[in-house]
Amino acid sequence: MIFSSDNWTGASSRVAEALLVAAGGHAPAYGADPVTQEVTAALSRFFEREVAAFFVATGTAANALALAHVSRPGGVVFCHSHAHIAADEAGAPEFLTGGARLAGIEGPGGKLVPEALGAAIARYPAEFVFHGQPMAVSISQLTEAGTAYAPEEIAALAAVALEAGLPLHMDGARFANAVAGLGCRPADVTWRAGVDMLSLGATKNGCFAAEAVVFFDPEKANGFEFQRKRAGHVFSKGRFVAAQFAAWLADDHWLDLARHANAAARALADGIERSQSARLALRPAGNEVFACLSVETHRRLQSAGARYYDWPAPALGVAEPDAGEVLVRLVTSFRTEDAEIEQFLGLLD
Amino acid sequence: MIFSSDNWTGASSRVAEALLVAAGGHAPAYGADPVTQEVTAALSRFFEREVAAFFVATGTAANALALAHVSRPGGVVFCHSHAHIAADEAGAPEFLTGGARLAGIEGPGGKLVPEALGAAIARYPAEFVFHGQPMAVSISQLTEAGTAYAPEEIAALAAVALEAGLPLHMDGARFANAVAGLGCRPADVTWRAGVDMLSLGATKNGCFAAEAVVFFDPEKANGFEFQRKRAGHVFSKGRFVAAQFAAWLADDHWLDLARHANAAARALADGIERSQSARLALRPAGNEVFACLSVETHRRLQSAGARYYDWPAPALGVAEPDAGEVLVRLVTSFRTEDAEIEQFLGLLD
Amino acid sequence: MIFSSDNWTGASSRVAEALLVAAGGHAPAYGADPVTQEVTAALSRFFEREVAAFFVATGTAANALALAHVSRPGGVVFCHSHAHIAADEAGAPEFLTGGARLAGIEGPGGKLVPEALGAAIARYPAEFVFHGQPMAVSISQLTEAGTAYAPEEIAALAAVALEAGLPLHMDGARFANAVAGLGCRPADVTWRAGVDMLSLGATKNGCFAAEAVVFFDPEKANGFEFQRKRAGHVFSKGRFVAAQFAAWLADDHWLDLARHANAAARALADGIERSQSARLALRPAGNEVFACLSVETHRRLQSAGARYYDWPAPALGVAEPDAGEVLVRLVTSFRTEDAEIEQFLGLLD
Amino acid sequence: MIFSSDNWTGASSRVAEALLVAAGGHAPAYGADPVTQEVTAALSRFFEREVAAFFVATGTAANALALAHVSRPGGVVFCHSHAHIAADEAGAPEFLTGGARLAGIEGPGGKLVPEALGAAIARYPAEFVFHGQPMAVSISQLTEAGTAYAPEEIAALAAVALEAGLPLHMDGARFANAVAGLGCRPADVTWRAGVDMLSLGATKNGCFAAEAVVFFDPEKANGFEFQRKRAGHVFSKGRFVAAQFAAWLADDHWLDLARHANAAARALADGIERSQSARLALRPAGNEVFACLSVETHRRLQSAGARYYDWPAPALGVAEPDAGEVLVRLVTSFRTEDAEIEQFLGLLD
Repeated sequence: MIFSSDNWTGASSRVAEALLVAAGGHAPAYGADPVTQEVTAALSRFFEREVAAFFVATGTAANALALAHVSRPGGVVFCHSHAHIAADEAGAPEFLTGGARLAGIEGPGGKLVPEALGAAIARYPAEFVFHGQPMAVSISQLTEAGTAYAPEEIAALAAVALEAGLPLHMDGARFANAVAGLGCRPADVTWRAGVDMLSLGATKNGCFAAEAVVFFDPEKANGFEFQRKRAGHVFSKGRFVAAQFAAWLADDHWLDLARHANAAARALADGIERSQSARLALRPAGNEVFACLSVETHRRLQSAGARYYDWPAPALGVAEPDAGEVLVRLVTSFRTEDAEIEQFLGLLD
Repeated sequence: MIFSSDNWTGASSRVAEALLVAAGGHAPAYGADPVTQEVTAALSRFFEREVAAFFVATGTAANALALAHVSRPGGVVFCHSHAHIAADEAGAPEFLTGGARLAGIEGPGGKLVPEALGAAIARYPAEFVFHGQPMAVSISQLTEAGTAYAPEEIAALAAVALEAGLPLHMDGARFANAVAGLGCRPADVTWRAGVDMLSLGATKNGCFAAEAVVFFDPEKANGFEFQRKRAGHVFSKGRFVAAQFAAWLADDHWLDLARHANAAARALADGIERSQSARLALRPAGNEVFACLSVETHRRLQSAGARYYDWPAPALGVAEPDAGEVLVRLVTSFRTEDAEIEQFLGLLD
Repeated sequence: MIFSSDNWTGASSRVAEALLVAAGGHAPAYGADPVTQEVTAALSRFFEREVAAFFVATGTAANALALAHVSRPGGVVFCHSHAHIAADEAGAPEFLTGGARLAGIEGPGGKLVPEALGAAIARYPAEFVFHGQPMAVSISQLTEAGTAYAPEEIAALAAVALEAGLPLHMDGARFANAVAGLGCRPADVTWRAGVDMLSLGATKNGCFAAEAVVFFDPEKANGFEFQRKRAGHVFSKGRFVAAQFAAWLADDHWLDLARHANAAARALADGIERSQSARLALRPAGNEVFACLSVETHRRLQSAGARYYDWPAPALGVAEPDAGEVLVRLVTSFRTEDAEIEQFLGLLD
Repeated sequence: MIFSSDNWTGASSRVAEALLVAAGGHAPAYGADPVTQEVTAALSRFFEREVAAFFVATGTAANALALAHVSRPGGVVFCHSHAHIAADEAGAPEFLTGGARLAGIEGPGGKLVPEALGAAIARYPAEFVFHGQPMAVSISQLTEAGTAYAPEEIAALAAVALEAGLPLHMDGARFANAVAGLGCRPADVTWRAGVDMLSLGATKNGCFAAEAVVFFDPEKANGFEFQRKRAGHVFSKGRFVAAQFAAWLADDHWLDLARHANAAARALADGIERSQSARLALRPAGNEVFACLSVETHRRLQSAGARYYDWPAPALGVAEPDAGEVLVRLVTSFRTEDAEIEQFLGLLD
């Protein structure tokens, strides 16, 4: 019963085997190898347009470097108050951008809404140097509350960003789960909806360590090479990240992995909805389930070895748990087994 | 005949198998897993004292973050003029330290010598704020010229650093090759000789991506966790780096790999010494051979498919090649085969 | 009727004459002159203990460099949500600290209260690297709402900061007005109450440009010289700033200037309280009056040439103006004349 | 006999009186005052084209912020090895640019020459990310050796910079002395010769503290406002810097001041040339005289109260002083008196 996080799970066997194959022989370093070239082409097919993609070590690096690339002096990034960049990256966006400020905006279910975004940007009038200057909008897909933006929701935010002349960045640490949940195409929730830059995370969805910064207009990636290198994020044996992405992309393996995880989350959510001792805080869009458990149930689960985190309600932006309840986050993965879910649900009343 | 660089070579089968094993199951993220704990203990045994170790994505990150940890405003790092940090990291040390300056010092065979180091430091008198302030000394082992510092050479530099109150950092991208070449223990060329921080590179010597910042006084590592996180260098599935290090350290696998590479380099060097159309620029201490080839020989090798880089003589700090010669760098790896060497030497006159 | 800001006002004639005198002759540059030495001694008398003081160009620089001096990677500064550092310095604290985050805390009348401060700090548990780490607490005296912290209020905040191991910084852009308003000694609201670093502003209170970072423990100022120099804040003809401070400190000139401004603010406030068409938003503690004017009155004043800014209510942290009202800020200075106040009040109903 | 530096000298009486006048009344803050507007127009007349100008506190700030404005990740600035930015600004350019590297280039008499500049830039091929990327060329006028670039020398360097797509910055801490010495117009050695940005220093030539960053293409100044503000360099009472510049520019006051200083330097140089116990190291182009004194003469001058600095020969880039000689720098100012020079020369043999 491991529901702590999808980054607790190892790597899929297809990804692991691909890495094993890649371990042989020799290949040019620093991304000049053929596998890296192939993956760039595969990503362009994945997104149905030519993209520029750069591997980095972590999702935090992907987010912070994407923002650094569009940084301006006194720059302000607009994001949800509880976005990962604002809450869980120890100041990496601030540091790697050279001091940008993250302006947190409240929003229901972890999502930004256009009105609030517009109002926040309006607090930084162009001629008023003292407040700093807007530089980017960043949203997460899945959000930190496990919800997903529909294409039209993204398009509405993109319109606000475009109006203000700001690039739109998407933190896609669980991008595959979002796409699988929405049943759309990757393009639908990225460039077709107005996203300029994506932190594409494959690590949580079956890889060892495979994160990429994707630019949907390759011209706008000019100079990013230096941004990445000077932060120490150019792997010398870059083909090993490429090999992971290659296996992840091939034969829609990413989609199979994400669907598995999402189905497990739905099964958990369904069981919780039927239960007397637990209730859903939000209907999951991907592989994260937020639920209020009675304290008694919570203790019973923990004693039985279930692993998951309790979650501060304000960080989620949903209603507070009642007295006698605890809000928890349950994350499923490509490796979650039916037996785990059955065991978990069997411990509810 | 691949002598381009040891980062062109894949991963050793033991390392690859260890990663395959680690791909299964679940484990706590962000370095809280048991494998990471075991590797820290293994590194303490490796160095014969308790150390603090932090995995990062690249050698550039290891170097720059170690220096960032000891950074001061207006800080100056003393290193060889052709050190990797000064020549090949696209300003990562300057960026991640928040603007430190690298004061390059010339020295024979890629090495700093104590007199020159002392003289360079003396140009920054403590009371003279305009020049900035010394903050660290950094040396490479192997050096960029493929030479190795003997323990007593390091101790002499460490004495100069200590006198000036400066920490001594070592860039150990090819640390294993240096130790294998010197026939000493890892401790002999690190803390026993006065080194405070080591960038320990395992990537070039058989791993996929396994780099660590090692502090020989764990107390001095306080706060480094934040330094690393805010640069985006905390792998979420940290156990995969740990698994590589575990396999690399076990049964002296690192030493076997390094000895293989070094023996290949010696064989190349011996053959070059016997040749009429090539001569050694420096006797190799590890797995890098710098040699002057006649232009004709160089062309013949290239036509036959030999891969290696020509190398600017000033960057090496050795004598200029004669007219009609080209200076080249040949790097061997744990996977270099006898047949490659024989084929290469067979193409010399 | 100039009530826009005290930085619209020129310089006092004593300060101006001192500068004229200092313009003659020659003196050592970069703060090695006798006037600078004398001012440091005068500041130690002013604060009734030995201090270290460093002149910088602006209050923004003083604030940001003081915070930079105590910066840590992933560092978080706790301040009021509407503190000048958070709202009006275009990211200077973030930039000069190398990426610190400002955690804004709400509080009545522009003040932090201990409970809220403690709760905010508690959100950054020491072992949880993802959130970053606390690095400082910063308060303003006068606050941005024109209120002043009593010595015991500061001591209570200092106790919270001390408990968390954090230095306490004070933005004293209107420090003289606060001290004059409280009728206390400068020491009472600084080091005696637990303040570690003060941005001491003399510019708004009668100088051309005279700001200093004051350390109440001179040992803790070690290295600040470099912090200041590398940000371009060491005046070459430093004695000219010193001369301003010298005149400002001599014969309690600072206190006379501040008392004049404060008395003018009180007179404005008294008149507003008596008026039918205006009401005080807060009772002024120094030289800033926040008031709600009827829109009609506001228009009448503007037509008559009164200069002041309307002020967003949320930024002040006081009650919203009613419909038909506008919240405004009126700032008096050492040069505000009785006639201006009479004219202004005469335009109220 | 004060020849230490021109920043030891106070302010000219015209400048001081202008400041006294400006001290009265009220005016909009942060550069929105009429004096600032007038000075911008006056600077456009001074340079014979429309310019954008921004006041900052120090020459170091002007240099570093100009470079920050054109900064790129992994950026490299090409300058003379002994340029002020490289030798005397405690890492301010590195810090305020977010980690740029200064690539020092040797050159006779403190000057860059086109061949060496081109060769240095060529070491950073565009496709080679490891070295970083060129971002700017910076020259000093006067140079650190007291020499001046003729218009055609600047044009030749500008052609190299333009070819490489790099902006050309000029550190004009002693710009007035250079222009006076060359007998040209300010435009001749700036935009007409290809200079893009100038750090215009008036402090050393008669002001209290008056430095400006001048952009010769105002469009290229977009966003600089934020660059300056976030470094704490926007004076709130900006009109006081403007008032200094206004007086300095009016009636060619700057030129009178510079000519006086230059004439004093020439008189010193002429006397030294006639002397037996001293010899010129370089013929002065402005108000700095570098000379080799016999040790005996040096001691005699010091005993008699002459103030000046000995200067390390390598920093100057001129021939080493002979044994028994000491190389010194003598700086004259707008206030240097004939009697001082006569007294000094009278102490030579």
